[in-house]
Amino acid sequence: MTSVLVVSGSPAPVSKSARLADLVGEGLARDGFGVAHIRVRDLPAAPLLAGDAADPAIAAAVALLDAADGVVFVTPTYKASYSGLMKVFLDLLPQHALTGKAVLPLAVGGSLAHVLMLDYAFRPVLHSLGVRHSVQGCFLIESALDMASPEFVTGDLQRDMLARAVDNFSRALTDNAASATWTGFPDRRRRQA
Amino acid sequence: MTSVLVVSGSPAPVSKSARLADLVGEGLARDGFGVAHIRVRDLPAAPLLAGDAADPAIAAAVALLDAADGVVFVTPTYKASYSGLMKVFLDLLPQHALTGKAVLPLAVGGSLAHVLMLDYAFRPVLHSLGVRHSVQGCFLIESALDMASPEFVTGDLQRDMLARAVDNFSRALTDNAASATWTGFPDRRRRQA
Amino acid sequence: MTSVLVVSGSPAPVSKSARLADLVGEGLARDGFGVAHIRVRDLPAAPLLAGDAADPAIAAAVALLDAADGVVFVTPTYKASYSGLMKVFLDLLPQHALTGKAVLPLAVGGSLAHVLMLDYAFRPVLHSLGVRHSVQGCFLIESALDMASPEFVTGDLQRDMLARAVDNFSRALTDNAASATWTGFPDRRRRQA
Amino acid sequence: MTSVLVVSGSPAPVSKSARLADLVGEGLARDGFGVAHIRVRDLPAAPLLAGDAADPAIAAAVALLDAADGVVFVTPTYKASYSGLMKVFLDLLPQHALTGKAVLPLAVGGSLAHVLMLDYAFRPVLHSLGVRHSVQGCFLIESALDMASPEFVTGDLQRDMLARAVDNFSRALTDNAASATWTGFPDRRRRQA
Repeated sequence: MTSVLVVSGSPAPVSKSARLADLVGEGLARDGFGVAHIRVRDLPAAPLLAGDAADPAIAAAVALLDAADGVVFVTPTYKASYSGLMKVFLDLLPQHALTGKAVLPLAVGGSLAHVLMLDYAFRPVLHSLGVRHSVQGCFLIESALDMASPEFVTGDLQRDMLARAVDNFSRALTDNAASATWTGFPDRRRRQA
Repeated sequence: MTSVLVVSGSPAPVSKSARLADLVGEGLARDGFGVAHIRVRDLPAAPLLAGDAADPAIAAAVALLDAADGVVFVTPTYKASYSGLMKVFLDLLPQHALTGKAVLPLAVGGSLAHVLMLDYAFRPVLHSLGVRHSVQGCFLIESALDMASPEFVTGDLQRDMLARAVDNFSRALTDNAASATWTGFPDRRRRQA
Repeated sequence: MTSVLVVSGSPAPVSKSARLADLVGEGLARDGFGVAHIRVRDLPAAPLLAGDAADPAIAAAVALLDAADGVVFVTPTYKASYSGLMKVFLDLLPQHALTGKAVLPLAVGGSLAHVLMLDYAFRPVLHSLGVRHSVQGCFLIESALDMASPEFVTGDLQRDMLARAVDNFSRALTDNAASATWTGFPDRRRRQA
Repeated sequence: MTSVLVVSGSPAPVSKSARLADLVGEGLARDGFGVAHIRVRDLPAAPLLAGDAADPAIAAAVALLDAADGVVFVTPTYKASYSGLMKVFLDLLPQHALTGKAVLPLAVGGSLAHVLMLDYAFRPVLHSLGVRHSVQGCFLIESALDMASPEFVTGDLQRDMLARAVDNFSRALTDNAASATWTGFPDRRRRQA
């Protein structure tokens, strides 16, 4: 079964980004993917801050990520960037932790003025971890997320944007990794002949 | 036939980035893709600088891009970012010009110190154009590119990096766009039932 | 006389960013600075695109920049970043063209969603040119700029933001470059003793 | 007395970035500035991760920053960006925490390939906090930092770069905040008349 890990990075006990992570995870599970959700704030604080990857709870989280075919990262927006808590988790990962994986970056923010943090701040860090490819992400405005509604994401525009982003991610997960081999280098061709 | 457009953005008449663009294009053509290569410097200077998308040569270039399933962008590195010439071409495109397309960003630079321009400067601009997903790119050091050699890209590390990047791009081109539909929103499911 | 160069980078014959550049330049002139304004679009297109720094008009523009104590850059926002035309000009400059200078980056954009381009895209390029320091910039929404009004910048918030940005730039221009010498390295201290 | 706060963000008990922060702080103290150094790792882990600004130790750290005329931030480089620990601290600050202050961003990294993180990742976050201006920063390669040497920073190039960066910061601290008022808006002039 193709597996997906959802990682959410809000420090708050109740947060719109964690709820969004749940929603996306539930949808992917209905679509037949194996889904797990790690809230970084549930990991033990002291080893997390010390970057102690040997801590059992942290090691288990890193192993989950290692085993996943794709990863959805959901971060709140603080100071025009991803949360420090999300980054503390990313800092624990080995350098090529996302190699061969598809990645979907999602962010929640209070102001439209911070939309670009997704592409200028968050995606570059994910690519530094070796991600095979990252699909178009989605920045959701807090005011369009209603904790009291079963739908949670309100507004057709935001719902469509999110659905399209997750669709692209699903397809990226299921594309056939064995279907093509580039023969751009003459000597590489010869070796294959 | 799946089609690929290669766009190179060096202002120089002879350049390593244009040669790299040729090499990648030739390899993709051998793999069965339909390939075209636009050198931005060959477009007419005055309408290019004026942002005149009605100029026939520029309109033809934009139409080629519109028809392509995927686009490879190859830029030299100037002032820690993509070339102004490349950006002048991107500025001519409609806002969603890359929607639904796979994109491979490649850069050539004189110093390892500029590697991050690919993820922090170039990819964000491509994502602003609506790209479906962007595969891991590749920054090649000029000193490893030998115009006098038929191989052009020297050094196993650089060759492997490039081959892997183009492989990922090929797969992204051929994944089945119709294979998945996310059912994350309860009402969306009902509508489908 | 302390001198300031204003550089504006819109390709359009009439533009809000060029008008903003005029306004800022006129204000600085009233404050006693020597001010010149280069509109990149007025430079000859072919040598500009070819990166030909030997062209007389381009050489004169580069010399003006070299002689200035501070530089105000005003760019429109295209594709979530500075204009290609502005970057074409920056690409012509020598690597350390802004060393020892104060810099004020200003941008005009159609949507609040692009505010972060100033800090994530434009300022990094200016710092790559060696700028001594860059003051807090200012992103102005097009809808608050009224070409028909003598005031041009409408709305108290936008006017205050701009005035504060230019004030900071003025101070940065006039700070005393000879007032401090760091003695952080023990041997540097000894040499001075 | 003009006061400077140095903030270092390595999670390690012994680190080159913390040592660099000490070195810079000691130099600024010799130059007559009042200097304090906060190592984020010394703050209590649980409230830090929870973003609890009411915790007494955290509140004291924020108050120190609020009282400082300038701030030096020293971060290690992880995943092509600042450390999560540094960001966790920045996330605790009020939105305009750096308004009116001069800022010097410094980074330590293992590879030249990450130099641009300073301008593309770290400085944008600092500017989002309202910083008046940020001087040219400095990225130091770990291999040029020798914990066993009293000099610590080895290599003339690196030493000069650092000294110049701190010099610029000193000058930015001592410039006269009352020396200029922009009169760019006609009505602003009238009000002053």
